[in-house]
Amino acid sequence: MVRQERALRTRRLILEAAASVFDEFGYESATIGEVVARAGVTRGAVYFHFASKRDLARGVLEEQFSQDGVPERCSKLQEFVDTGMVVAHLMPRDPLLSAGARLSLGQDAFDDLGSGAIPGWIRRMEALLVAAGERGELLPHVVPADTAWLMTAAWTGVQIQSQKLSGRADLEQRVAALYRHLLPSIAVPGVLAALRIGSGRGAEVVAEVAAARAAAGDSEAQPAVVAGGVGAH
Amino acid sequence: MVRQERALRTRRLILEAAASVFDEFGYESATIGEVVARAGVTRGAVYFHFASKRDLARGVLEEQFSQDGVPERCSKLQEFVDTGMVVAHLMPRDPLLSAGARLSLGQDAFDDLGSGAIPGWIRRMEALLVAAGERGELLPHVVPADTAWLMTAAWTGVQIQSQKLSGRADLEQRVAALYRHLLPSIAVPGVLAALRIGSGRGAEVVAEVAAARAAAGDSEAQPAVVAGGVGAH
Repeated sequence: MVRQERALRTRRLILEAAASVFDEFGYESATIGEVVARAGVTRGAVYFHFASKRDLARGVLEEQFSQDGVPERCSKLQEFVDTGMVVAHLMPRDPLLSAGARLSLGQDAFDDLGSGAIPGWIRRMEALLVAAGERGELLPHVVPADTAWLMTAAWTGVQIQSQKLSGRADLEQRVAALYRHLLPSIAVPGVLAALRIGSGRGAEVVAEVAAARAAAGDSEAQPAVVAGGVGAH
Repeated sequence: MVRQERALRTRRLILEAAASVFDEFGYESATIGEVVARAGVTRGAVYFHFASKRDLARGVLEEQFSQDGVPERCSKLQEFVDTGMVVAHLMPRDPLLSAGARLSLGQDAFDDLGSGAIPGWIRRMEALLVAAGERGELLPHVVPADTAWLMTAAWTGVQIQSQKLSGRADLEQRVAALYRHLLPSIAVPGVLAALRIGSGRGAEVVAEVAAARAAAGDSEAQPAVVAGGVGAH
């Protein structure tokens, strides 16, 4: 049991090192040697967990879906907002998310890994919208699959443009503006009026999760972002 | 005069060849030799117009802003929609637009050209929104600069995701869905109800422009997309 825990920790350490390398150099220029150096483990340990650089990249993409999601709310549309705002808050701070975006969007080398984390994010958004619909939160014309596709695409575009034009300094503000623009055509008015969509929302939820964890005695510093059970592929 | 016309045609020929090369290989792997071969001109002709590969790329990015825009409408928001729908219609068919997107979004080699065509598109969207505001078409809370930033980012994200997941087969349908989702929080109800936002809108406008040109005796087959006067930088 202790041994298995240690193996999981080493695996996570390697993934974090790999994420920082992919984030900095891109897939093509990343080397396993650099991952070994940053993780502070042996080359053998890396190859015990991952057969190749491609495998490491896939691991980084899947890791963002391996943890618990944002806290449950009465309103599923609030969870829909919170998910996007938390990722906007964490992405500039978390190489796993940042590398995941870079790996998912590379137009050249990474085509063999398909569209990276995009299909997983669409499925996660769709699940939240379907649940919102069951609770009567959606306007009647909303098709969860289409709106989930669109929301994922628009979020991605905002992330890229914020990175290009401001080095992600305005990411939270721009993602909040995205929700303010999109939600009036998605949410019924009563729900819309009650949603919290400010640009500080991501930090709020992250703090809430951290406080809940501290109260539960969990020592993990990093709040989890995304619900388990949604694979990256 | 004839000589100058011929030079302009050669320049355009070279830019189209360069666009198809950048579109296929990306900036890093593109070579001037391949551009020379595709344009069917001499290497000297290419260097007469463009000093370097970087210059060629900049030329491709600027060319998309060098032509007339979509036809004027009573509603400036209809022009706002038409612009995005026409680009969605032409991008899979026009290497200049497609290469422009690839060059603007490259995360690696092309960083020295900044954010490519993105700032030019934001300015163009903002100008249309400001004009729409002057005509009373915008809801009172709309800030043209912010909504232009968001629209450009969201359009870009839709383009990338459509390319990744369907090879751009659903681009027009997805961009139409983007407008349907965003416009209710931008347009006053009277204008909103009159807007034409179907996924066939781009093809409609392109046909309209082609018919107007044919009537005017202009032999250019390709309809222009974007208003002059808006530089890529």
